[in-house]
Amino acid sequence: MKKISILGSTGSIGTQTLDVIAYHPEQYEVVGLSGGTNVPLLVEQVLQFRPQTVSLSTKEAAEQAASLLPSDIKVLHGEEGLIETAAGTGADCVVTALVGSRGLRSTLAAIDAGITIGLANKETLVTAGHLVMNRAREKGVSILPIDSEHSAIFQCLNGEDRGAVQKIILTASGGSFRDKTREELDGVTVEQALNHPNWSMGAKITIDSATMVNKGLEVIEAHWLFDVSYDQIEVLIHPESIIHSYVEFVDNSSIAQLGWPDMRVPIQYALTYPQRFVTPTKPFRLAEVGKLQFREMDYERYPCLRMAFECGRKGGSATTVFNAANEVAVARFLRGEITFLEIERILEKVLERHQPIVLPDLQAIEETDTWARAVAESI
Amino acid sequence: MKKISILGSTGSIGTQTLDVIAYHPEQYEVVGLSGGTNVPLLVEQVLQFRPQTVSLSTKEAAEQAASLLPSDIKVLHGEEGLIETAAGTGADCVVTALVGSRGLRSTLAAIDAGITIGLANKETLVTAGHLVMNRAREKGVSILPIDSEHSAIFQCLNGEDRGAVQKIILTASGGSFRDKTREELDGVTVEQALNHPNWSMGAKITIDSATMVNKGLEVIEAHWLFDVSYDQIEVLIHPESIIHSYVEFVDNSSIAQLGWPDMRVPIQYALTYPQRFVTPTKPFRLAEVGKLQFREMDYERYPCLRMAFECGRKGGSATTVFNAANEVAVARFLRGEITFLEIERILEKVLERHQPIVLPDLQAIEETDTWARAVAESI
Repeated sequence: MKKISILGSTGSIGTQTLDVIAYHPEQYEVVGLSGGTNVPLLVEQVLQFRPQTVSLSTKEAAEQAASLLPSDIKVLHGEEGLIETAAGTGADCVVTALVGSRGLRSTLAAIDAGITIGLANKETLVTAGHLVMNRAREKGVSILPIDSEHSAIFQCLNGEDRGAVQKIILTASGGSFRDKTREELDGVTVEQALNHPNWSMGAKITIDSATMVNKGLEVIEAHWLFDVSYDQIEVLIHPESIIHSYVEFVDNSSIAQLGWPDMRVPIQYALTYPQRFVTPTKPFRLAEVGKLQFREMDYERYPCLRMAFECGRKGGSATTVFNAANEVAVARFLRGEITFLEIERILEKVLERHQPIVLPDLQAIEETDTWARAVAESI
Repeated sequence: MKKISILGSTGSIGTQTLDVIAYHPEQYEVVGLSGGTNVPLLVEQVLQFRPQTVSLSTKEAAEQAASLLPSDIKVLHGEEGLIETAAGTGADCVVTALVGSRGLRSTLAAIDAGITIGLANKETLVTAGHLVMNRAREKGVSILPIDSEHSAIFQCLNGEDRGAVQKIILTASGGSFRDKTREELDGVTVEQALNHPNWSMGAKITIDSATMVNKGLEVIEAHWLFDVSYDQIEVLIHPESIIHSYVEFVDNSSIAQLGWPDMRVPIQYALTYPQRFVTPTKPFRLAEVGKLQFREMDYERYPCLRMAFECGRKGGSATTVFNAANEVAVARFLRGEITFLEIERILEKVLERHQPIVLPDLQAIEETDTWARAVAESI
């Protein structure tokens, strides 16, 4: 039995990870779960999967959960609780399904403990890619991607010589507003932005898809995960989200991964790698799709993606700022404080004011993150 | 330097194989070439690539070629010449680019000599798949596919556990007549049939594409090459020929190989495998294609494909007959003796009269092949 700990088990990726685990009860044992403040759902998960350790974001939520759970279950909270759930539960694999850069310390703790990472928390790599990847290399820890695009690339690279990779092409659906012009974006509502055409996901990533920030985060994630330069990464608009991404090799042969947009496939692949097991998903029929469309990315229409490439090329703390400013801007948009197009204006302004630090350490990253959040909040 | 011998060097696959070799002069040495009766082209190839051994189909052609070539080059003819070019030239790899089942004995001779096969001559596997594959297994010889569909599948299987394969999906452009109804097929000419929408290929395979016999031969080839049952093989109409085929795994994740329709990519892959080198081909841009379409195969519209599946499932000598009858019928159509739709009627009638032999040996296969040709010629 493989022992699994899930950080962010009450979110979209977390609940789908538990779906996959429930489908293979003979293969996996849940040893740790962490949630935010959704006590009822976390308690339900704990009672079903029986981990020894659980963690919530606040002391109050933890106390409430503890009162509903058997006394032999350790109920923790805050960053320490997260770190203990990640690194102190004897897990073979930690699925990092948290949203945002707050997943960084617990991910590093799991790596230090030699635990395989199933990475769904892309912000970790965006905010501190060099720290995470260097630490993983030092410890010989595998970072297995869960993002559908990165899982696709990872699958396409199976058995291939990494030196023969010419380009990595990330596909992008275009998000909820792909058929709107920039002018039409002016008056869009939160509700409209949350209505993704293909994927059912959490709020933050759905907004990030609409601004194309999500694809920017994925570009930076791909740079770190697959050790490719930004010149080797391309983004292609593909409205149907059927080709989840592909790799072009030096011989002009391309290998792509395809399927219905269902996160349980890449989630399970990270758990079963290098094997493949049956998934609780619908068989894929390309004839049922009928038509796949592709068009060049438009960097004028999606300036946030251009900014992501620029930050990635600058390197150092530039991507930390990109991510932190975005997290705040999205939260402000969701709270109704700013308009949709102000997300990109905030990003632009915070980046303008930042002087990137080359190879920042963890402290510098956390300080930069805090600074960028404060600025983004104040604009 | 890898030593290469090419059977059928003056045909479409043969000349493109030489293109690839010419592009990598530091990697490959040509040690043998065989052609049909196109003496001028074969002589030109020999003068450029300097193999020690060449072979032509007839004694007359061989004598004519010998008179034009330096005396230190061995000029042979007939089946013995073919066998010597395949197995007697010290080649590391023999590219079998002949058309039809007459490639069988020379392919077996190369396998017996422990030489890797770059297989473009699918009729070899259709006519005697069990003999060829068993012989290759015994001798530890690799059979590397050159057909674009099979190269695609082979690439998609890189690094994967064969036990996790759920299905193999071969794509089919639909050939020159894909937009015609069966009624409209009645009056079609040889010229129209030779006008393939995507691929520039030899005459026989172009007609086979129009009748969908080619896809049938490929289904049988895939059965032998990848050791999958006929229930695991599907054919999908894909007019653009961009996804060259794909593999569906048990987790409902599919891996596809894509690119422009250019045979030099799969040809080179068979030569460089497991490495990939730069090819003299155009970089692939999915945005330039814009749209990929797919639809279910229609077995009423393409009865020859249905017959191929039936023969494959029957096994034994049934596929030998399917292939031999088709070779004769296509030749008769190209000579203007029969109409396009009579190709399938001849196939049907010859198959009706045949009582399949289980596990036929080489002699039984050759006798069956001869019998089927005679019947197909007489109908």
